[in-house]
Amino acid sequence: MTDRFSDNPDPGKPDDLILDPANLDAERHALELKFGELLGEDDTESLRELAMGLSPGDLSEVLRFMNVEDTARILRMLPPDPLAEVLSEIDNRSLSVLFTLLDIDEIADIIEEMPSDEAADVIGELDTEQAAEVLAAMEETERIEVADLLQYPPESAGGIMGKEFAICTEEQTAGEAVAVLRELDEDDLEQTHFVYVLNPEGKLVGRLPLFRLLITAPDAVVRDVMEADPLYVEVDLDQEEVADFVQTHDLISLPVVDSGMEMVGLVTADDVMDVMEEEATEDMARLAGVSKEEFGEQSSFRVARSRLPWLLGAMLGQLGAVLVMSHYEQSIETMVALALYIPMIMGTAGNIGIQTSSVVVRGLATGEVDFYHLGRHLGRELGTAFMTGAAVAAFIYLISWLISSDPNLSAVLSFSMLLVVLFAAMAGSGIPLMLHRVGIDPAVATGPFITTANDIVSMVIYLGLATLLLSLGRGA
Amino acid sequence: MTDRFSDNPDPGKPDDLILDPANLDAERHALELKFGELLGEDDTESLRELAMGLSPGDLSEVLRFMNVEDTARILRMLPPDPLAEVLSEIDNRSLSVLFTLLDIDEIADIIEEMPSDEAADVIGELDTEQAAEVLAAMEETERIEVADLLQYPPESAGGIMGKEFAICTEEQTAGEAVAVLRELDEDDLEQTHFVYVLNPEGKLVGRLPLFRLLITAPDAVVRDVMEADPLYVEVDLDQEEVADFVQTHDLISLPVVDSGMEMVGLVTADDVMDVMEEEATEDMARLAGVSKEEFGEQSSFRVARSRLPWLLGAMLGQLGAVLVMSHYEQSIETMVALALYIPMIMGTAGNIGIQTSSVVVRGLATGEVDFYHLGRHLGRELGTAFMTGAAVAAFIYLISWLISSDPNLSAVLSFSMLLVVLFAAMAGSGIPLMLHRVGIDPAVATGPFITTANDIVSMVIYLGLATLLLSLGRGA
Repeated sequence: MTDRFSDNPDPGKPDDLILDPANLDAERHALELKFGELLGEDDTESLRELAMGLSPGDLSEVLRFMNVEDTARILRMLPPDPLAEVLSEIDNRSLSVLFTLLDIDEIADIIEEMPSDEAADVIGELDTEQAAEVLAAMEETERIEVADLLQYPPESAGGIMGKEFAICTEEQTAGEAVAVLRELDEDDLEQTHFVYVLNPEGKLVGRLPLFRLLITAPDAVVRDVMEADPLYVEVDLDQEEVADFVQTHDLISLPVVDSGMEMVGLVTADDVMDVMEEEATEDMARLAGVSKEEFGEQSSFRVARSRLPWLLGAMLGQLGAVLVMSHYEQSIETMVALALYIPMIMGTAGNIGIQTSSVVVRGLATGEVDFYHLGRHLGRELGTAFMTGAAVAAFIYLISWLISSDPNLSAVLSFSMLLVVLFAAMAGSGIPLMLHRVGIDPAVATGPFITTANDIVSMVIYLGLATLLLSLGRGA
Repeated sequence: MTDRFSDNPDPGKPDDLILDPANLDAERHALELKFGELLGEDDTESLRELAMGLSPGDLSEVLRFMNVEDTARILRMLPPDPLAEVLSEIDNRSLSVLFTLLDIDEIADIIEEMPSDEAADVIGELDTEQAAEVLAAMEETERIEVADLLQYPPESAGGIMGKEFAICTEEQTAGEAVAVLRELDEDDLEQTHFVYVLNPEGKLVGRLPLFRLLITAPDAVVRDVMEADPLYVEVDLDQEEVADFVQTHDLISLPVVDSGMEMVGLVTADDVMDVMEEEATEDMARLAGVSKEEFGEQSSFRVARSRLPWLLGAMLGQLGAVLVMSHYEQSIETMVALALYIPMIMGTAGNIGIQTSSVVVRGLATGEVDFYHLGRHLGRELGTAFMTGAAVAAFIYLISWLISSDPNLSAVLSFSMLLVVLFAAMAGSGIPLMLHRVGIDPAVATGPFITTANDIVSMVIYLGLATLLLSLGRGA
């Protein structure tokens, strides 16, 4: 912090305090302690100065770990404009708690300062009554924009787009297009890199990058200098597909149109990054059997409530394995050594299930894997399963021979292990692809489905084969 | 595809074929089949037309699933400029195979057309000798840029930045800054949204958004109209921290400076999206015990080779559990029912380990969790563990009582389950935070570490308690 500060030609200017990206956690923690100290001393002036000296992004990160009351005290010191920027970075639960401390007009003033997409997200988090009151207290222009955005599902193009974009018509001149820019707020201009071009019917037909306006004569007609047929998406497209589209075409912003090709919003790179982060969190959460809402959640009770269904579901699956084992109880009684290797067989099946299914789940998200190449993917996994299966079979042969000194048991173990690995690999890669095909998010069902299938099948294979081949138990 | 095509005012123009983002997989697969058909008929003219009609992003996605020979046949039909764009989207392994089919001058010509950052990535994938030959065959300007980029680690700011950016000095006028833009290639201009401003010593001191140039008088001095003290990162910063910085501050591009504050490159939003995708894949891969290189890998052998160490490592861990069980073999012999519940205990411990560790790993990536709030996070997890532990303990009591009708066994099972859940939760959340603290990527070691610890400890708790409380085995 200090080094970068001293690089600064005008260190007295408070908005120059940018945290060192190489050491963020430590710097943010130091600031959190500093805020805590000043709050304790009730030193309003220093608190305000410190808060205003931070960029909105950094301040929101520092506040993330503070309690709602302290957060509210600090935020109320900020003028509406930086405050709106900080609030649009804060997670929505803290925000709604915070809003219980403010009156409707204060909230409306703050929300008016926010970019329209973030304003809509915030209002979407309020309860219906409060949302209506806040909307009613807002100025007309902002109210109409936000009300328009609120009608789209949050996870669609309409749910992530903003209403801040510049338009002109194809018959205007380059000079007139520049005049459009002059009309915009400075804040909106910051995010403006293209002027979008409409035909006389109001349909989107082109875009003008600002550099082209700079190097074009002011009397040139927009139609002749625009880039025709710009990329766009329709307003109801799922946000994940919007993000893929932006990535495939390396865009920094993407116009959103309605079914009549009228431009209704603009998705920007920062919206897409938020979607990517959310979707990656969601996929990982689902594979691990937690809900994405739990990230940042502070209440143990809510976390437990969200994790329990998954844990109990998995136990029901394991109950299947328990019943299979109790079916073969006599075999185990005859040869207790059988039980020793159960953790290794089940554990390996579980690991193969996680490996294969996570490759499919992530591959579906990045485009590496799709249902049309199911056969090829399963073929690759089958080949892999034969090789890894042979290796782990040899390993368990060796280990069991060293521990139990029974070559017959070792033979059964290694043969079972090979079959278990083949099954686990096919289930782990096939099940998520099938789920995806029928429209179920593969990450949702993958964990419990595959774990259960693997637990039960691996016990049937192992104990069944052992009973049969070692002439144990009921069959003997 | 057809609907969007007919929306198009000039459907004869081949570069208008944009795939419908709502139905990408199916449309890409249809195109892949079409290419296959044309390749079979050896219809060069239609192949070229189809390939040139697709955007580079879509074409690279369609080629992803084709074999290298067919890919090479199609790509050799394209002129250098679109070819370079397609190649920069293709994964690097296919690219190096493809290059074995081309001669050095052809490769150099193609690479010269690429953005410098992607050119450097491609050359970085070649073997040292071929890389040197290609560099030598390139024109000087491009060679110098690419050679400069090659000196930085691939996962640093220097490794992802490009050399395409516009600069002016603070003493120049706005009109002169516009003249700088006129000098740039049209291709480079596409990505230019700011002109960066240097002081007389060549240090970065400001940036000029293009909109400001548009609404400023040409004779205004740059110093007076620029945004001073722009955000920047240093060239050796890790790419993940660069991505966090861009996200925190909602940037679309970020200048990169050396230790003397001289601007050496520019990171753009598409670079950051690539990093985010790579890092999310990497985290998920590590948690699941696969390597990120495996994504898109077609060889079963290479996949097996990369998965085996993790599987065998986990088996070594499970060996610990096997040894614990064999230590208590006499207890199991006395009461075979004990063995039945091992899958449920170990499975639940494993699930809790995955839940808690994935929350930490993902939370560290998104900033929800850090080491400075270790105590708070562990406290939350402990609270959660008590609640979930009580629930699963009650569940196993019920199940075991129904199956084994032995209230003492059920009591031991449920008490063991509670302890196992508490341990698994603390290990699953504490271990990755500790690893992160000492500079080890928590995702790398989390899987095997936690699985092993859970397997062993859960067996010690369960069988130890059973032996003690049920007066079984050696102690009896």
